Amino acid sequence: MIPTITAFEQSPDRGRGLARDMRVRWALEEAGQTYAVRLVSFKEMKEPAHRALHPFGQIPTYEEGDLALFESGAIVLHIAEGHPGLLPDDANARARAITWMFAALNTVEPPILDRGIAMMLEHDKAWFQERLPLLEGRVRVRLGELSRRLGAADWLDDAFSAGDLLMVTVLRRLSGSTLLDEYPNLAAYVARGEARPAYQRAFADHLSVFRGSQPPRETNST
Amino acid sequence: MIPTITAFEQSPDRGRGLARDMRVRWALEEAGQTYAVRLVSFKEMKEPAHRALHPFGQIPTYEEGDLALFESGAIVLHIAEGHPGLLPDDANARARAITWMFAALNTVEPPILDRGIAMMLEHDKAWFQERLPLLEGRVRVRLGELSRRLGAADWLDDAFSAGDLLMVTVLRRLSGSTLLDEYPNLAAYVARGEARPAYQRAFADHLSVFRGSQPPRETNST
Repeated sequence: MIPTITAFEQSPDRGRGLARDMRVRWALEEAGQTYAVRLVSFKEMKEPAHRALHPFGQIPTYEEGDLALFESGAIVLHIAEGHPGLLPDDANARARAITWMFAALNTVEPPILDRGIAMMLEHDKAWFQERLPLLEGRVRVRLGELSRRLGAADWLDDAFSAGDLLMVTVLRRLSGSTLLDEYPNLAAYVARGEARPAYQRAFADHLSVFRGSQPPRETNST
Repeated sequence: MIPTITAFEQSPDRGRGLARDMRVRWALEEAGQTYAVRLVSFKEMKEPAHRALHPFGQIPTYEEGDLALFESGAIVLHIAEGHPGLLPDDANARARAITWMFAALNTVEPPILDRGIAMMLEHDKAWFQERLPLLEGRVRVRLGELSRRLGAADWLDDAFSAGDLLMVTVLRRLSGSTLLDEYPNLAAYVARGEARPAYQRAFADHLSVFRGSQPPRETNST
């Protein structure tokens, strides 16, 4: 059964691939899973039909037969549990990979997202310039800790896992700033993720939505 | 094998049970799992020995034989996977419960935590009073959406799950404000969680650390 995910009809970041459907597209490509995409407009996302799938009116969602999921982290975990390649077989290594999934979303992403929200919604406020160094300081604390843990390794815990997949997409939210460049091993880590063939395929499909003159409303990928 | 978790030696919230060890204690109590607690000071948390367990220098951690985990969400999921009572048996219902775990930590907690961080770290800044309504507005968006989804149900998806456990602990971070009272079904949902015997036992153990005149540095619970 081919699952259907939802993605933005229009790119909020001019096609840089920061929207959360990229996480799910990438996971599906790593898993070799064909999928369909249903595009939704910003207006449709907040309407009852979409909210029945996603109570918070966001993308992505994931539908597969009777199953409907939301939250990119949960969808990536669901895909990882059903296909080889995203979680180690060893039980302890698997639990550690899942730890990195939560660390990406609950420890590293929040200060990065805070900075992004301020850039987007508070840049015209009187406090913005004075507050930005506070926000960037909080991001640097997490990047420094992550950089020390990663060290010279390729991935966070031995082989590439869904934990790396989520962490790379979280760190990519800093693209456009120079913060990541202060931590060369993290910048190389993100580049390593982006170089994976599955990432490349996912990004191309994500981008084609915004590049196409008349993007189809529903398409199959992979 | 009895797992060992870490918790704060001193309460940062005067014993209200908002520290993240409560999530793990509660899950262990729901699972009927005996556990040991190692208390760490704020200073020890940032030292290399603790950072080897938790790269971000926080609590809780979870050690069980060769396995060492951090991130409360990942630890709760690990406990839920190993014991009955926190995840449904049905595969689709299990995936939905995990979706609520991620929703609690990646969608509902961030705006609540932002408000908490501002209250704690920016209350003396010139912008604080003007910015607070923005922050509370963002919290209300999520609470409104969650309230509409919960409706008149007891739990987010049929039976109590690890998704409810995390969501209740996230919403409890609003204790001390009146925001939650604006959504009576959410306030009742939190009260329902707090009334569970496993929560009560976890909270009592959590509180005893700060109430005891000479709290032991390592204790067994349950």
